Amino acid sequence: MIFPILFTFFLLLSSSNAAVQDFCVADFAAPEGPAGFSCKKPASVKVNDFVFSGLGIAGNTSNIIKAAVTPAFAAQFPGVNGLGISIARLDLAVGGVVPFHTHPGASEVLIVAEGTICAGFVASDNTPYLQTLEKGDIMVFPQGLLHFQVNGGEAPALAFASFGSASPGLQILDFALFKNDLATELIAQTTFLDAAQIKKLKGVLGGTN
Amino acid sequence: MIFPILFTFFLLLSSSNAAVQDFCVADFAAPEGPAGFSCKKPASVKVNDFVFSGLGIAGNTSNIIKAAVTPAFAAQFPGVNGLGISIARLDLAVGGVVPFHTHPGASEVLIVAEGTICAGFVASDNTPYLQTLEKGDIMVFPQGLLHFQVNGGEAPALAFASFGSASPGLQILDFALFKNDLATELIAQTTFLDAAQIKKLKGVLGGTN
Amino acid sequence: MIFPILFTFFLLLSSSNAAVQDFCVADFAAPEGPAGFSCKKPASVKVNDFVFSGLGIAGNTSNIIKAAVTPAFAAQFPGVNGLGISIARLDLAVGGVVPFHTHPGASEVLIVAEGTICAGFVASDNTPYLQTLEKGDIMVFPQGLLHFQVNGGEAPALAFASFGSASPGLQILDFALFKNDLATELIAQTTFLDAAQIKKLKGVLGGTN
Amino acid sequence: MIFPILFTFFLLLSSSNAAVQDFCVADFAAPEGPAGFSCKKPASVKVNDFVFSGLGIAGNTSNIIKAAVTPAFAAQFPGVNGLGISIARLDLAVGGVVPFHTHPGASEVLIVAEGTICAGFVASDNTPYLQTLEKGDIMVFPQGLLHFQVNGGEAPALAFASFGSASPGLQILDFALFKNDLATELIAQTTFLDAAQIKKLKGVLGGTN
Amino acid sequence: MIFPILFTFFLLLSSSNAAVQDFCVADFAAPEGPAGFSCKKPASVKVNDFVFSGLGIAGNTSNIIKAAVTPAFAAQFPGVNGLGISIARLDLAVGGVVPFHTHPGASEVLIVAEGTICAGFVASDNTPYLQTLEKGDIMVFPQGLLHFQVNGGEAPALAFASFGSASPGLQILDFALFKNDLATELIAQTTFLDAAQIKKLKGVLGGTN
Amino acid sequence: MIFPILFTFFLLLSSSNAAVQDFCVADFAAPEGPAGFSCKKPASVKVNDFVFSGLGIAGNTSNIIKAAVTPAFAAQFPGVNGLGISIARLDLAVGGVVPFHTHPGASEVLIVAEGTICAGFVASDNTPYLQTLEKGDIMVFPQGLLHFQVNGGEAPALAFASFGSASPGLQILDFALFKNDLATELIAQTTFLDAAQIKKLKGVLGGTN
Repeated sequence: MIFPILFTFFLLLSSSNAAVQDFCVADFAAPEGPAGFSCKKPASVKVNDFVFSGLGIAGNTSNIIKAAVTPAFAAQFPGVNGLGISIARLDLAVGGVVPFHTHPGASEVLIVAEGTICAGFVASDNTPYLQTLEKGDIMVFPQGLLHFQVNGGEAPALAFASFGSASPGLQILDFALFKNDLATELIAQTTFLDAAQIKKLKGVLGGTN
Repeated sequence: MIFPILFTFFLLLSSSNAAVQDFCVADFAAPEGPAGFSCKKPASVKVNDFVFSGLGIAGNTSNIIKAAVTPAFAAQFPGVNGLGISIARLDLAVGGVVPFHTHPGASEVLIVAEGTICAGFVASDNTPYLQTLEKGDIMVFPQGLLHFQVNGGEAPALAFASFGSASPGLQILDFALFKNDLATELIAQTTFLDAAQIKKLKGVLGGTN
Repeated sequence: MIFPILFTFFLLLSSSNAAVQDFCVADFAAPEGPAGFSCKKPASVKVNDFVFSGLGIAGNTSNIIKAAVTPAFAAQFPGVNGLGISIARLDLAVGGVVPFHTHPGASEVLIVAEGTICAGFVASDNTPYLQTLEKGDIMVFPQGLLHFQVNGGEAPALAFASFGSASPGLQILDFALFKNDLATELIAQTTFLDAAQIKKLKGVLGGTN
Repeated sequence: MIFPILFTFFLLLSSSNAAVQDFCVADFAAPEGPAGFSCKKPASVKVNDFVFSGLGIAGNTSNIIKAAVTPAFAAQFPGVNGLGISIARLDLAVGGVVPFHTHPGASEVLIVAEGTICAGFVASDNTPYLQTLEKGDIMVFPQGLLHFQVNGGEAPALAFASFGSASPGLQILDFALFKNDLATELIAQTTFLDAAQIKKLKGVLGGTN
Repeated sequence: MIFPILFTFFLLLSSSNAAVQDFCVADFAAPEGPAGFSCKKPASVKVNDFVFSGLGIAGNTSNIIKAAVTPAFAAQFPGVNGLGISIARLDLAVGGVVPFHTHPGASEVLIVAEGTICAGFVASDNTPYLQTLEKGDIMVFPQGLLHFQVNGGEAPALAFASFGSASPGLQILDFALFKNDLATELIAQTTFLDAAQIKKLKGVLGGTN
Repeated sequence: MIFPILFTFFLLLSSSNAAVQDFCVADFAAPEGPAGFSCKKPASVKVNDFVFSGLGIAGNTSNIIKAAVTPAFAAQFPGVNGLGISIARLDLAVGGVVPFHTHPGASEVLIVAEGTICAGFVASDNTPYLQTLEKGDIMVFPQGLLHFQVNGGEAPALAFASFGSASPGLQILDFALFKNDLATELIAQTTFLDAAQIKKLKGVLGGTN
């Protein structure tokens, strides 16, 4: 008759289990902190918190860059909160481009699932590192450095980007410069670009001033 | 008459002291985040938050494994929250065993306080590292690796396990496999164990399916 | 005539660039430390250090588990060293299984590129989280927890596993228990498995004692 | 007519932007955690959260140490919360002294803006490292080690101290020993100081017992 | 006669002191790793390793941007290696500009020591945060985000920038795009800039292709 | 005939195993870095690297403080290198004292194995937290804060101190102030202690100047 004894053992250990922070599924209704979102109560965690189906659907590339980025960061995929990892889907139509951008909070590994992608990053010493990637190739983009991806082939391309943070961030150079109300003169002064060039891109991207 | 002047100095510095995060005693009523529990308001912190007496009492080893683990993790001992350290008491009756388990969140150092303990871990290359530990000996178990402790002597053994996290976690292999509703067939497929063996252990540990 | 002036500016900043640690491509010939491999000298870094083509080739699944894991961790892909990220390719033939295992050093996000995969992990409180994943679905496995993947369909499956560490580690449960010289009696004592079961699996996997 | 298309692209990416944790401006009304204060809602963040003017005003050095420390830690300067950096202003009148102290949570770099400062720290092997710093000189004080600053010149001195934490902490040796109710006998026992010396300093600093 | 006894005590503790890693002064001749440079042997560490006088000298602003940045990162100031902090001097002549740039590895706090500086950064949601800073004002620039500094007054300006890393990195936007051999067509494709604009800036900054 | 197939599987996985950084046993002959000592080559790692017997032997308390600290930090116990944990033995004869000290690099949990210990720490706001600890009691001392232990009973006391770092450091207040060549006048200026008191303690502890 071992069950009562086992139960004792279980109770002892379960008190420690209560302390275990195996994961911290994001509770978007509670305060966020520097390390990420607050955790859902264990009782309300479900398997769906750890699974995300949004990356199975191609993004809409009918836009000016002929590209779409579909993120599964902590804000979309609560199960990765606090776990130091996230992922995004990248669709590039023929001629598609993900223009120069950075991820302030994480390094990225890109894996090409379909098609051909020409990718590159620029190091702090201004050296460019460029490569044409075929299906199955991977490339790493170190944290915070400017990089881009271009569909280098004649068919649509699909890739997945992994990040070493649940919230890697994404700063798109053109949007940062031209899609807000930064004064044209100030942009000219801090980028050396001509005012006419700046105004042209503001026009395309919706910036003012 | 220096007191007024001192007071000024005190006020200046006390404003910085308010910012000091010397510690973050767990407030179990506030949200938890990836870095641990929220902090109690400084005014309600007491010395008892930093002291824990539960490890002075032997755990009940009248159970199937003849062993008991008494944790002082952040969930039991709020003073360690956020400080990257915790401890547990391990009682092993004669013949007692802490079966194969892992701590997903921290490395462990075990110190033998009484008796003799045979302990071991298995590295990722499948090499086992085994040692018989006498009173005063210590052994380190690297984070996340399978390890066990067995009373190797003819008297009860007592040990303390230190962890490099306030919430190191504890996953007991047999419980993970046999103490839940994982289908016997699925366990067989993913462990190569025979169905009969699985069902036998489910029976002992309370698993179903 | 601005070039001499520009040159001065360049020199000033290039001294700071020398200090920039954008990346730390692994130098396998130099000492390794707790944070990873030593860095190659900047002058010998090439774009190929940041690109890896090995994941474009299907792993050989003609084995007992009908599965193959092809890693691109820091030891294979020197560009990810120190960047907190890595990736692996997972091929599962029909009936293929990646048996229960853990990654002691990182959480994992799995993305299904082809086929159907039934995946699951067990939390510290012994709750199993199981899901059948279709193409494009992703699932996260928190650091250090036991998990598995099984080809749940009638065609080969392909997936990529991302990790939040350049060296996440891999401990396969069956290998840790049965593919070394751990004494059968000791395994029985620390897993509650029957000796006959242990010996059978030692026979299959090449263990002794 | 590209605006509708652009809008689609914008919506796609803006969902990822919502997940970006560029910064975490401190919300002093929400719970604090081990990693810092909770974050203000993005909509209520303003440029003033990232700017602090309090260091432009000289601290009042009309006190016993002829010195003043004005902190811009996370508690005063909410924009640095979670960003691993903070700063303080240090005013030293002629003869001014910042007595031996430690910062438990961060290393410090001091830069002399005006005057001459004699600074020093003591390493764990008891070796003192002392230097007289002129305007523009910098000195680093490693985390947690006892250090001091003395105005070494004949004019007021001004310096800025940078810290590698948003909440570096500040423990002033004399205050820790003599500005509370620690029993004189206990201090004597744990510092080897004479009781008369202890009582004298308690008198000056306002300690009791 | 207590000296022999004391000596015993000293020896006991000094063995622990040997293990203390108070600091890790950079040894530029030994391998570098992901966490920084190797440490100099304790016996060769001197106070000068912790002191740097280079920031006392104004940088040469006789250049196209009328500005100079003088870093005291680990590569210049070996004492900060491994301590998570560094500093730089910023000189801005009248009309001087530090153009848009990022620090991939750390957040920055800028303190204005002389003059008036107009500074700003752009967040991931493209919101600009701009402020005119007077003497004594500080502003924080979160890690990895594009930011700039402009002399906003009619006299030279001096500032010090603190970083939460010993090697924060520095990527200057214009240099990354125009001061290397990236093909004009590729830059046009990934920035939307006109080819003529790109060629003009390549001409100024010394880029080719 | 499954062995050849298994062998293939083993080879595939073993390549990943080579990348696994389960542990990093200290190689004292190779360079040290900010994250700890370099790692021994895997082939030369032995179980003895993970076991340490030095804490089984009582330290010699025949000294002025009637106490002895025996560390098992990374410098003595190479197996903990890089694992974020270490331990020390503390022997206190009747009347023994571990005087005020700090650990700059880690928090500490003390567990009393024999006897009675009066322990305490002082927070940054100068509040003392004191407790008399009986056998089995534990107390946590947050990182970098001044703390002490005194044998509060009439029998020898034994305790073990765990640290959340493999190299927590140890700065003993009296040694830092009085056991070196810091000038008496400078100590007086930066501690407010009387010169006579300083000279007396320099005499006891071996300081000069």
